Amino acid sequence: MELSEKVRKAIRNVPNFPKEGIQFKDITPILSEPKLVSEILDYWENVYRSEPIDAIIGIESRGFMLGAALAERLQKPFIPIRKVGKLPYETVTFIYDLEYGSSEVEMHKDALKPNWNVLVHDDLLATGGTAMAAAELTKKMNAQVYGYCFLVELAFLEGRERIESYSKNVDSLAIFE
Amino acid sequence: MELSEKVRKAIRNVPNFPKEGIQFKDITPILSEPKLVSEILDYWENVYRSEPIDAIIGIESRGFMLGAALAERLQKPFIPIRKVGKLPYETVTFIYDLEYGSSEVEMHKDALKPNWNVLVHDDLLATGGTAMAAAELTKKMNAQVYGYCFLVELAFLEGRERIESYSKNVDSLAIFE
Repeated sequence: MELSEKVRKAIRNVPNFPKEGIQFKDITPILSEPKLVSEILDYWENVYRSEPIDAIIGIESRGFMLGAALAERLQKPFIPIRKVGKLPYETVTFIYDLEYGSSEVEMHKDALKPNWNVLVHDDLLATGGTAMAAAELTKKMNAQVYGYCFLVELAFLEGRERIESYSKNVDSLAIFE
Repeated sequence: MELSEKVRKAIRNVPNFPKEGIQFKDITPILSEPKLVSEILDYWENVYRSEPIDAIIGIESRGFMLGAALAERLQKPFIPIRKVGKLPYETVTFIYDLEYGSSEVEMHKDALKPNWNVLVHDDLLATGGTAMAAAELTKKMNAQVYGYCFLVELAFLEGRERIESYSKNVDSLAIFE
């Protein structure tokens, strides 16, 4: 079975979460299968190993899980983006709309060096609001998005269209049309 | 230089965060040093490789970063504990006091199997409230804490005393007296 098919099969659909009418893609069953996690990391490591990436950005909080592991595999700095008020040092901030409301995210000011190429990782690409916020924070630091790496993409929400202006290099392991 | 000393040196002290008079231990500079991250994971992998551990619990959200990477190294399931309302499936819940207020955390009901031995991971052991909550959630699932694995311990807050009743196996890489 192909990796993307294994990932799709491991995802649990939870109806009406976080609100009525939304079908949530629960990735926690993937994390309970260490062999599958290794296969995913092996795949990404292979995809990005020879690419000119200077750092991996992981988006709070599900993007921390595989993002930090991938950064270690690639031997690159891991940079967390967090909800406002969580990072202790000086930060840059960006406010954005997301699927269920609006949000404000931050990155440490000294996290990225100018002109760095960063890979943005999150578990899920939905409307693309959070990924776009990560790209905007990257721009604020005079660095650029090399690409995006998602576990799951909800293609019907058209998030890809929203983030391709920063980088067309969008890799999602399991895409739901 | 010893690993614990390297970890101590990489930590950034941020005064008056999250409130006046608290000196926060910022671990993000560690994550920016991939070689150090690898050394930490190598060390833990070596410590726990032959131990009877069935799963790694990681506490939201800084416990997700190295926790998931360690679980993959050890080829064990990674189980996230999250703030209430974040996990989509059926959960068990525990309310507890923590350093700056109180909090409520959850774990998926099907995450742990009865009698499993779990390793609880978080970046920081402070008063031990969150680690204790993780132990209580583990007990609710009829599983037990095999041990705790922290990056940093603030020994002067005596969190160790609070969690040793669940397991005396507490490993902190960098201890601040």
